[in-house]
Amino acid sequence: MSDTSLPVVRLRPKANATAIRRGFPWIFADELVVDRRTKALSPGTIALLEDAERTPLGVVGVTPASKIVARMLDLRGTAAPDKAWLKDRLAKALSLRERLFDAPFYRLVHAEADGLPGVIIDRFGPTCVIQPNAAWAEALLPKMTEALAEVTGCANILKNAGSRGRALEGLDAADAVLLGTAPDAPVPVQMNGATYMADLTGGQKTGLFYDQRPNHGFTARLAQGQKVLDVFSHVGGFALAALAGGAESALSVDGSAPALALAQKGAEAMDMAERFATRQGDAFAVMTDLADAGDRFGVVVCDPPAFAPSKPALEAGVRAYERVARLAAPLVAEDGYLVLCSCSHAADLAKFQGACLRGIGRAGRRAQLIYTGYAGPDHPLLPQLAESGYLKALVFRL
Amino acid sequence: MSDTSLPVVRLRPKANATAIRRGFPWIFADELVVDRRTKALSPGTIALLEDAERTPLGVVGVTPASKIVARMLDLRGTAAPDKAWLKDRLAKALSLRERLFDAPFYRLVHAEADGLPGVIIDRFGPTCVIQPNAAWAEALLPKMTEALAEVTGCANILKNAGSRGRALEGLDAADAVLLGTAPDAPVPVQMNGATYMADLTGGQKTGLFYDQRPNHGFTARLAQGQKVLDVFSHVGGFALAALAGGAESALSVDGSAPALALAQKGAEAMDMAERFATRQGDAFAVMTDLADAGDRFGVVVCDPPAFAPSKPALEAGVRAYERVARLAAPLVAEDGYLVLCSCSHAADLAKFQGACLRGIGRAGRRAQLIYTGYAGPDHPLLPQLAESGYLKALVFRL
Repeated sequence: MSDTSLPVVRLRPKANATAIRRGFPWIFADELVVDRRTKALSPGTIALLEDAERTPLGVVGVTPASKIVARMLDLRGTAAPDKAWLKDRLAKALSLRERLFDAPFYRLVHAEADGLPGVIIDRFGPTCVIQPNAAWAEALLPKMTEALAEVTGCANILKNAGSRGRALEGLDAADAVLLGTAPDAPVPVQMNGATYMADLTGGQKTGLFYDQRPNHGFTARLAQGQKVLDVFSHVGGFALAALAGGAESALSVDGSAPALALAQKGAEAMDMAERFATRQGDAFAVMTDLADAGDRFGVVVCDPPAFAPSKPALEAGVRAYERVARLAAPLVAEDGYLVLCSCSHAADLAKFQGACLRGIGRAGRRAQLIYTGYAGPDHPLLPQLAESGYLKALVFRL
Repeated sequence: MSDTSLPVVRLRPKANATAIRRGFPWIFADELVVDRRTKALSPGTIALLEDAERTPLGVVGVTPASKIVARMLDLRGTAAPDKAWLKDRLAKALSLRERLFDAPFYRLVHAEADGLPGVIIDRFGPTCVIQPNAAWAEALLPKMTEALAEVTGCANILKNAGSRGRALEGLDAADAVLLGTAPDAPVPVQMNGATYMADLTGGQKTGLFYDQRPNHGFTARLAQGQKVLDVFSHVGGFALAALAGGAESALSVDGSAPALALAQKGAEAMDMAERFATRQGDAFAVMTDLADAGDRFGVVVCDPPAFAPSKPALEAGVRAYERVARLAAPLVAEDGYLVLCSCSHAADLAKFQGACLRGIGRAGRRAQLIYTGYAGPDHPLLPQLAESGYLKALVFRL
């Protein structure tokens, strides 16, 4: 039964209704008839989307001023999402993670791919951190909080409003405690045998990224007995996994002192602090210093921030990845391993791999490629939205 | 010092000497000056390659009648490969595998990527099976056998001459025992907790493929408590890994009775035969039958032979992958998993993924993509030779 109280928004004739019917979840501003009535909808309004011939397509969340003017919430649906609907989506997301992981530490909801457009939820045991990065989710946040608590049994639900995407949706940047209490200390998280410290609420809100989990795990297999260098280490992602995998030593390099302090805490929690060291500074400068000092490592990892987050930044970003590879390769011992990562949407696998190989080649080294990894399975993809994910990890043997 | 006894072969001016200097290992027939002297070289001759300006590039193996007329054996090298050179390449290949695997069951040499063009060596504990698929390797086979025995300590070395590539090099199809004895029964191989039976010498020479190991492992994580269907199962690759992962039951479908008999033996060796069944027949017909009978599985795997082994076969191959997906999707239970694999060089990841999604869509299902896997790290890639590997495994949740 159709919820006749829903406002109706309509596609222009030029819009790609076929793609939407096949599951493409976004409607761009130039595809929608934005008349005075639609413009007047408040951000996050739930509406019924029709094609240009007035055939209903499904239920969308509308943000009139956004470039993504509407997001498909329920293809072929006719009613506004209620708590039961939210619980159903959350339960489906949970069932995948429970099948995959032994402990409740994972990305629980990965936005469009989990049927909740713009919504990210990371779970840290009894605490969930929700990022409502679309106006519809912000509007439904009280219901979503209730649904999340009921589906997961989590006692604490925090709102992280730090994503830059929220501004595009006209949303503020105010964090909040939505349920329970915020942890008053970093939360220990077990992955690949290592202990990470996730600061969910501190002034730096360093957080923790689950996406590299399988790539950490693969790298740890190479690390046994090796000196490991982890550049752009954040809270110690690769370095601590390598220690857990039996590395002789690990050095974490990062520009952020708070992140390195958390890495240090992790190493202490693992009782491996004597094999662990940190060095704060500019990654490029530190790599140059280490090379000048003649330091060599059995495994070198570079997991930099997104150098090519968007198409205009692509060319400069690809050059930056090449530079990372050129500076890192001389630090790899003969017959050692170089792990190069990119979290840039715009640099696809071929472009990123090409940049890495040029950098390795300019350093006078030659490489085998032994592993290509992506984000872990708690970061599913909606195939209609992207051929492949943002995160790429390549492992070369030099 | 240059080995002045080596014959010299020379690139034409139009050949891509830069690519060769950067590590591209093949010289095609139209890139080489094939004069009477070069034509007269016996297949497998070791020669010195020069560019059109007579600058030496490295040592190559020449097969005058082949489309790949020369393969780079030693870039910037000047002497013919001797036993010490072969041992060095084999030791480097071994060190990667010993770092990665607890037991000596792996692909030890993956051709060009391990610096031994055209040479495949699979190791099954004390037994190595070598495929010398290039004339230079056939010519050096006695030395290579000695080197392999010394580097690995393997007691038995078998020659498998079954590759179709050998005919292009003018080589025969005669298998041989090069050292020790051939095992007189299938060899048990442990992977991902499962036991596989590898028939290295029987009339069917069913063998065993190591390349799917990480994809078997990921699928096994999804299989706990599930009914699993493994279509194109060969010797039980995915089915037995799923049983080891706790599947309620597994059904292997294949056209080959000897392959299914080995799968059955594997299930018996695991003491899990009561949860295992086989069905011999045409995969497409069996899938149709199962759908007609209303059978549903928590996990369905299709790992067909290469439908698109070459560019001319691409279009028909992509249609075949779509058909596989269309027939398999209805067999997946609600909220179940579909694992679709391709070992076609010509169908790249985007084309294969597109075919899978069209097939799933035509079956009236929608999908999340939770995993993209390639061949395991004992199948390294030479980046100059291919952007990505032949083997792709996609795991969809329906």
